[in-house]
Amino acid sequence: MATEQNILRELFVTGLKNAHAVEKQALSIMTPQVSRIENYPEVADRLRLHIDETNGQIGRLDEILAEFDTSGSALKDLGLSMSGGMAAMAHTVAGDEIIKNSFANYAFEHFEIASYKSLLVLAQDGGFSRAVPLLEQSLGEEVSMAQWIDESLPLVTRRYASLYAESGSFGAKV
Amino acid sequence: MATEQNILRELFVTGLKNAHAVEKQALSIMTPQVSRIENYPEVADRLRLHIDETNGQIGRLDEILAEFDTSGSALKDLGLSMSGGMAAMAHTVAGDEIIKNSFANYAFEHFEIASYKSLLVLAQDGGFSRAVPLLEQSLGEEVSMAQWIDESLPLVTRRYASLYAESGSFGAKV
Repeated sequence: MATEQNILRELFVTGLKNAHAVEKQALSIMTPQVSRIENYPEVADRLRLHIDETNGQIGRLDEILAEFDTSGSALKDLGLSMSGGMAAMAHTVAGDEIIKNSFANYAFEHFEIASYKSLLVLAQDGGFSRAVPLLEQSLGEEVSMAQWIDESLPLVTRRYASLYAESGSFGAKV
Repeated sequence: MATEQNILRELFVTGLKNAHAVEKQALSIMTPQVSRIENYPEVADRLRLHIDETNGQIGRLDEILAEFDTSGSALKDLGLSMSGGMAAMAHTVAGDEIIKNSFANYAFEHFEIASYKSLLVLAQDGGFSRAVPLLEQSLGEEVSMAQWIDESLPLVTRRYASLYAESGSFGAKV
């Protein structure tokens, strides 16, 4: 019979693996974006910083997962669970790529925020207390990144309009 | 020569059309979700309310677009621009469908929030003042929906764990 504690443990480990897959997906969305940006250096800088943070978040998830002895085969299947779902949120063909990527990145950050908040509920209810500060650190980074995107949105929108006026959508889009 | 004002007008109309497509996509994500939910009546009720709000938001976008005389053919192509990108965010095969849909809905709300905020910048800079209160009303509804998802996340996570303990993932997932 599965005990309540075993169920919480199972759900927590599944949630950690899903979060791991989501962070890998985040890297695969942000990395091509940052390499294309030409006219929005603040956005490129902040994305570079968040790519570093994301690598740290993956490290934290690995560290928590290691406590549950799910190394090796358990992590092999992670790549599939989210791929495809969110990749299409990167709008590399759109004439207003920088704008739509801002919306998509903002959305993606909130997927991650919700994911960490739900993991924190499971960690607290399951008594997985060593995971809590690690998850809180990653959550804080996601919240900061989301706030930055929100605050920079007027600047990005206005610079897009001004570059568009100068040189059309091709010159403005990244 | 394109004037600054003409550029703002063009970008605003494109943004309105994109927002229209995003709202249509939101309907196509929420409608199947709400019909499947069995064990989370508060979530189903809130989704039903937000489906009504979304129809109102589409009406507001139509109203603003009508001022710019882009009725008819201009609206025909809207369906394509976002479809596919976000549809995969609905996780109808996942064992933890209700949880992943909560994350995805939260993300989607923030895509819409960013989209309305960017439109408000263009509306203000372009002097499209009649659009402002309409866009603000829709933005407020998206913010409320996002807050509700955030606040209900612990309840949904805990009920999922408890139903999972009673009857496994199949009994817990919707």
